[in-house]
Amino acid sequence: MNKDMQQYLDKAEVLIEALPYIQRFNRKIIVVKYGGSAMVDEELKARVIQDVTLLKLVGFKPIIVHGGGKEISRWVGKVDMKPEFKNGLRVTDEATMELAEMVLGKVNKSLVQLVESLGVRAIGISGKDGRLLSVKKKYANGEDIGFVGDVTNVNADILYDLLEKDFLPIICPVGLDDDNNTYNINADDAACAIAKAMKAEKLAFLTDIEGVYKDPQDSSTLISELTVSEAHKLVGDGYIGGGMLPKINNCIEAIESGVSRVHILDGRIPHCLLLEIFTNKGIGTAILNDSERRYYDGE
Amino acid sequence: MNKDMQQYLDKAEVLIEALPYIQRFNRKIIVVKYGGSAMVDEELKARVIQDVTLLKLVGFKPIIVHGGGKEISRWVGKVDMKPEFKNGLRVTDEATMELAEMVLGKVNKSLVQLVESLGVRAIGISGKDGRLLSVKKKYANGEDIGFVGDVTNVNADILYDLLEKDFLPIICPVGLDDDNNTYNINADDAACAIAKAMKAEKLAFLTDIEGVYKDPQDSSTLISELTVSEAHKLVGDGYIGGGMLPKINNCIEAIESGVSRVHILDGRIPHCLLLEIFTNKGIGTAILNDSERRYYDGE
Amino acid sequence: MNKDMQQYLDKAEVLIEALPYIQRFNRKIIVVKYGGSAMVDEELKARVIQDVTLLKLVGFKPIIVHGGGKEISRWVGKVDMKPEFKNGLRVTDEATMELAEMVLGKVNKSLVQLVESLGVRAIGISGKDGRLLSVKKKYANGEDIGFVGDVTNVNADILYDLLEKDFLPIICPVGLDDDNNTYNINADDAACAIAKAMKAEKLAFLTDIEGVYKDPQDSSTLISELTVSEAHKLVGDGYIGGGMLPKINNCIEAIESGVSRVHILDGRIPHCLLLEIFTNKGIGTAILNDSERRYYDGE
Amino acid sequence: MNKDMQQYLDKAEVLIEALPYIQRFNRKIIVVKYGGSAMVDEELKARVIQDVTLLKLVGFKPIIVHGGGKEISRWVGKVDMKPEFKNGLRVTDEATMELAEMVLGKVNKSLVQLVESLGVRAIGISGKDGRLLSVKKKYANGEDIGFVGDVTNVNADILYDLLEKDFLPIICPVGLDDDNNTYNINADDAACAIAKAMKAEKLAFLTDIEGVYKDPQDSSTLISELTVSEAHKLVGDGYIGGGMLPKINNCIEAIESGVSRVHILDGRIPHCLLLEIFTNKGIGTAILNDSERRYYDGE
Amino acid sequence: MNKDMQQYLDKAEVLIEALPYIQRFNRKIIVVKYGGSAMVDEELKARVIQDVTLLKLVGFKPIIVHGGGKEISRWVGKVDMKPEFKNGLRVTDEATMELAEMVLGKVNKSLVQLVESLGVRAIGISGKDGRLLSVKKKYANGEDIGFVGDVTNVNADILYDLLEKDFLPIICPVGLDDDNNTYNINADDAACAIAKAMKAEKLAFLTDIEGVYKDPQDSSTLISELTVSEAHKLVGDGYIGGGMLPKINNCIEAIESGVSRVHILDGRIPHCLLLEIFTNKGIGTAILNDSERRYYDGE
Amino acid sequence: MNKDMQQYLDKAEVLIEALPYIQRFNRKIIVVKYGGSAMVDEELKARVIQDVTLLKLVGFKPIIVHGGGKEISRWVGKVDMKPEFKNGLRVTDEATMELAEMVLGKVNKSLVQLVESLGVRAIGISGKDGRLLSVKKKYANGEDIGFVGDVTNVNADILYDLLEKDFLPIICPVGLDDDNNTYNINADDAACAIAKAMKAEKLAFLTDIEGVYKDPQDSSTLISELTVSEAHKLVGDGYIGGGMLPKINNCIEAIESGVSRVHILDGRIPHCLLLEIFTNKGIGTAILNDSERRYYDGE
Repeated sequence: MNKDMQQYLDKAEVLIEALPYIQRFNRKIIVVKYGGSAMVDEELKARVIQDVTLLKLVGFKPIIVHGGGKEISRWVGKVDMKPEFKNGLRVTDEATMELAEMVLGKVNKSLVQLVESLGVRAIGISGKDGRLLSVKKKYANGEDIGFVGDVTNVNADILYDLLEKDFLPIICPVGLDDDNNTYNINADDAACAIAKAMKAEKLAFLTDIEGVYKDPQDSSTLISELTVSEAHKLVGDGYIGGGMLPKINNCIEAIESGVSRVHILDGRIPHCLLLEIFTNKGIGTAILNDSERRYYDGE
Repeated sequence: MNKDMQQYLDKAEVLIEALPYIQRFNRKIIVVKYGGSAMVDEELKARVIQDVTLLKLVGFKPIIVHGGGKEISRWVGKVDMKPEFKNGLRVTDEATMELAEMVLGKVNKSLVQLVESLGVRAIGISGKDGRLLSVKKKYANGEDIGFVGDVTNVNADILYDLLEKDFLPIICPVGLDDDNNTYNINADDAACAIAKAMKAEKLAFLTDIEGVYKDPQDSSTLISELTVSEAHKLVGDGYIGGGMLPKINNCIEAIESGVSRVHILDGRIPHCLLLEIFTNKGIGTAILNDSERRYYDGE
Repeated sequence: MNKDMQQYLDKAEVLIEALPYIQRFNRKIIVVKYGGSAMVDEELKARVIQDVTLLKLVGFKPIIVHGGGKEISRWVGKVDMKPEFKNGLRVTDEATMELAEMVLGKVNKSLVQLVESLGVRAIGISGKDGRLLSVKKKYANGEDIGFVGDVTNVNADILYDLLEKDFLPIICPVGLDDDNNTYNINADDAACAIAKAMKAEKLAFLTDIEGVYKDPQDSSTLISELTVSEAHKLVGDGYIGGGMLPKINNCIEAIESGVSRVHILDGRIPHCLLLEIFTNKGIGTAILNDSERRYYDGE
Repeated sequence: MNKDMQQYLDKAEVLIEALPYIQRFNRKIIVVKYGGSAMVDEELKARVIQDVTLLKLVGFKPIIVHGGGKEISRWVGKVDMKPEFKNGLRVTDEATMELAEMVLGKVNKSLVQLVESLGVRAIGISGKDGRLLSVKKKYANGEDIGFVGDVTNVNADILYDLLEKDFLPIICPVGLDDDNNTYNINADDAACAIAKAMKAEKLAFLTDIEGVYKDPQDSSTLISELTVSEAHKLVGDGYIGGGMLPKINNCIEAIESGVSRVHILDGRIPHCLLLEIFTNKGIGTAILNDSERRYYDGE
Repeated sequence: MNKDMQQYLDKAEVLIEALPYIQRFNRKIIVVKYGGSAMVDEELKARVIQDVTLLKLVGFKPIIVHGGGKEISRWVGKVDMKPEFKNGLRVTDEATMELAEMVLGKVNKSLVQLVESLGVRAIGISGKDGRLLSVKKKYANGEDIGFVGDVTNVNADILYDLLEKDFLPIICPVGLDDDNNTYNINADDAACAIAKAMKAEKLAFLTDIEGVYKDPQDSSTLISELTVSEAHKLVGDGYIGGGMLPKINNCIEAIESGVSRVHILDGRIPHCLLLEIFTNKGIGTAILNDSERRYYDGE
Repeated sequence: MNKDMQQYLDKAEVLIEALPYIQRFNRKIIVVKYGGSAMVDEELKARVIQDVTLLKLVGFKPIIVHGGGKEISRWVGKVDMKPEFKNGLRVTDEATMELAEMVLGKVNKSLVQLVESLGVRAIGISGKDGRLLSVKKKYANGEDIGFVGDVTNVNADILYDLLEKDFLPIICPVGLDDDNNTYNINADDAACAIAKAMKAEKLAFLTDIEGVYKDPQDSSTLISELTVSEAHKLVGDGYIGGGMLPKINNCIEAIESGVSRVHILDGRIPHCLLLEIFTNKGIGTAILNDSERRYYDGE
């Protein structure tokens, strides 16, 4: 057999290796929190969209929840806004919220456009559409920081209906409170709330870190698998801090509400989603039920 | 019977008068081009949204297509953009298109929010979602004026699917060309293309005029009903000009493609939609098939 | 704005006022016991039918249960029957039952005809069709008074199937016992049994009184809202007597079986159904759950 | 094998013989015009109802259309009506129509009751329900004979919907004209119109004659099978007269409109319907397409 | 009435007698274990197939599970195999299993062919298709006797799906263990497992005996009805032995798992299935719930 | 990036490359004629089954039609049959047909077993099940060669029903004639008939040759793409002979009946199906419509 043919056969083998994964996640809901570098770098962006589109095509039900942080900052500068502060905390006033919604909307449609360009049916909505995300005002240390909200309800029927009609939903984290005011929602929180409401099979966070470390100073202490109990202990013992703390708490909450697995992935690695799902290459940190560990080992 | 009771009975009679109209348009698609004053004046805006929501609740299938002209201009000022011109024509360059899409997205979600606040399921999409609107570049007198498009295809399945799931679709007129570039579409054109693709029962334009005049200088020459033949003749005889000409051509095209009736309504009159549909009060100008006139007379 | 236009706008406002009610009762089942003057007076009859037809068209699921008392008496006279008595009680013998069924059938089809003439799909059935109403003989103070029955079972599937096929069911209160004998059923009882079996949102009795009075001698003591506890107390305290007693007991039973609200309406007021449902004009007496009062107040 | 067992085996063989017929008419619509002696004699009545119920249970879709002639006459006498005549023709005035509708309604429900007592879901409707039968006034030799109608439209959807919900529809031949007046319809005409509208597989008339004779004076000239051409010829040649003429014309019309076979059965023979359908015993006269004869021969 | 006609009427009466049975078992699942003489004798075979086909056509949902014992022995001889023995027990080695599967497959398709020749949709599958039957190795007195399996799981969805698509499933008792090895299953066991998994209304064993005897030596002690308690007692008291013991245990297990009735029928009687189901002729022994006896008596 | 990670990324890229193919054939029917070496060599067999299973999992609708030639010959030897000959042609007599059906059945279930072991729902049927394949006797040069049949009808509904229930159908080429005799069918013919009846997107023949040659003596003349016109010409010019002639005629017929593409693949290459579908590596010869060539070029 010549070398050329061998290459093709190798390709065929890769596809065949994907078989058991395609089967395991058939018709399963996978919520992807999309943010960080993977959203800024055009190359990485294209990879993420390819990954999610492939997941859809082979029979999974992916849902994207995206943020838009850096692009919002860029526009705040562009329109020359004066940020408001209260006790040292930045406040999302009405004007900022208006601009943030515009920017998130733009980002949202640009993702729709990328998925559609690969020939897959996408729909971009915010938490306002079908009142998907109801919120109440979030207080930071008791401080009113404006239109920042905590999710109080996810209208999961909206997503079930869109999935049934074969759409790939792409969601920007904006919601309404009981008085119909517009609120910004932390994208991690929104993704977590949606994954919980839909009892997703997987919730994957695309981040700018390699995963969870036992000792953040020492990259060799990366944890590839973490049960909920272990996570609780790490938090209790004070190992987890900074921006990672709310993320880990989200993960714990998600697992405890019925999500099967949560992944903190390194979005800077191209195709990290595919690698996590279709290969035995451990990417980042997986959080799972105490009882799940053995099960996966035996597979 | 006391006066108070009489008032209530009068109200009941109004509802009963609506019976035949509710029946006639049951499950019929009504496309509303929403723009002009009715979109700027908050009072009028609330009325339009109430009207459309009522239409939905009593069993019709309304679809809103909106513009966002004045708001776009406001933002162009805000971000201090320099408009580009070519041979005296304003050009929609990439930056303008980006901003326009943001503003249209904001307007879109604000309409969703209003409908949702009345308890009806709305979904706000653009022509990118599900690739609803495919376009090609429009040339003005042979001149390339940037990212302004003509609709080449409406993916009606998207709207049928959303209607089946009981959404009230609210559409902003942005589309994609074959190379996945973003284009602005004239909202009248978009509404007309959608009404044609869905063989809507009605297409209603909310405008800032009373309707079509035989002599625009003389408000007593308002035409309340116009057959397609008469419209062709008016155009041919040069009576129609200015901004009204493309609108009338859109109307003619819509009727000739299977839309039953097109209405040019005065959006400055509160509840003009309800008045047109539920009463025999002629509001604005109706364009209809030559063969339809008698039919409606006989009702 | 001229006066003519103002009138039209007022009409539009009436329709808009109906919005929250149309929403609240969307797809809800409303059982209407139709009888009394509203069935004899042709003018009132037309109004009731218009009301029910409108309820159907705006998305509710009304079911009519009708009596036929006066018309039956008229025919008993016409065919020169000798009424049978036992211990002073009128007995429904076989011949009377045969005639009663014929008259009820006639009344039934005349209502179907009226609804159909308004363009809505109606179907007139008795408790025999699909064995909708099973009965056993009712004894009045231990006395056998012939073919008068108590409902022992409602075959609700029949009505669900007809509602699913978009029929407005019109039911005459005739049923079958286990030996397939034909029985007359008190229309109030039949309506109550059906409302309970279908967990109706509302059960409305069209009567010839204004409502329930604390003191029947004093029309100023009309009670507009009554919780089940209060109703029990009124009955216990002996305030309720005569024909009202079984009606109130029916109401209590209905609420306790899951019907949300029961209304004793004054059928002599035109459009009393619409007024009750679409306005805040209190017509007659509403019986509701103890826990419901606050809820409705807060709306 | 003992004699007792042999009897049982014979029974089993009868069931097995029914196999090909059960297959051939599976899910096929069979319209039965029910009238004459088979409706008066209680014994025969029970047999007809058993037959139709069996047809339903083994998977056919029977529809009964019934008359009520003799019972109507009985009641006309009972209420002491004065028949009106015009040029020697009896006129169905309003009072007669009212009574006829009542009697037909009674007959209708008694048939429902019989079918239900055998445990099969029946529904009794008239041509008013769902406006099943639209009519216009029929003139006898140009004479207005009152409320007697010709069917102008059958709303077949009503019957399809009821069949889908597994009802056995039992229809009394009363209809509405465009002004919502009630009309009597000849039951043969109604059955024929319904069979045509539903492209029934079979239309069977239960009559009080043995079938069609070549020479009505000579019972040995009974015709067991008649093609449409032959029927046309018999009529043309004047062999058919009296009450048989409209019946034969109905048959011809039915076949020419797509009904596969029409049967004129002798309703005085118990189980004539079963015998016709499940055995090769020729009962009465079958009218069929010219091209059908050979097909059936070859089976 | 002549004698010929009388015969036909008698036939009609037989069909009418079947009415209540057709009703009682409408859409009910009936599992038939088909084996013994009824499978060898061509005449009896035709009768069984006619019976099952009729059951299907009148609305029941029969499922056939067949053996193939004698035909397998014939082929073992034909290919000149040497049977293997272990401690006196015949062992199903791989070669025997291969041949058995081939023969069972042939028998399976010949039954499909017979049903299809009667015009009914049949599908022949083994326990491998859709992994209908999962097994584990069965040990006879602790002895490994080769590829003989006990059913550990029935994938009932497979049969529901085939029934929904209107197939008559014909199943040969071959299954797979967790390592995808092929196993033979005793047909009685397979039928019992399937009846239990589908909560069948009836499970009927076609056997070569008249039924269960109190005293196998005395044919006058045939038991026509046996409650589970009585069966337990008979077994406990040692009355049941030989090949009947596992059969009775199967019966008890089936009833205790929700099957309504189990029948041990004498397959040597033509149409024994029809006789059992459609007549009051007791064929063989019925095993039923303790609480069922009275219920059936009262019918 | 280390080498290990690079390998994983390469794998991800292979999956991404499959995207457009997965999309193009989504829900498309692909008929695979499975035979030759790929059926004898266990290694190749496993590859084919993996390929087909993958096709199913990523959303295609594959159908396998298999032969069993060599295995049949082996068993003919085993049971020591005497082949019958007529004018030098081997005759499929009844005994041979019986054995062939048994062997084909065995092969069929072994393929079901392989697919099921990969976790995909398979069902193995022959042309008898649901009377999928109707045949008439085939004459070779006018000679009766026994039970060898030509397909006269494919009951495609059977396959649509099984596909709807998510089965992967595996078909052995045995059919029934009008007298319910069993016939062997050439597997190529059966596959072709099925592909035509279902308007398959693709029909792929797994063969033991590299493809079609212009000059069979010269392996450098392999044709990778052939339009129907070119195929007709090659046949007309006498370039095609031997076993290839009927195969090419089957291909031409398939294309002309609506199959989009037919492939003659070299089954000796592992994963030849995947390579053909998911890569641009030309495997074997593709036969296509004259108008198709350009279309594919442009992709």
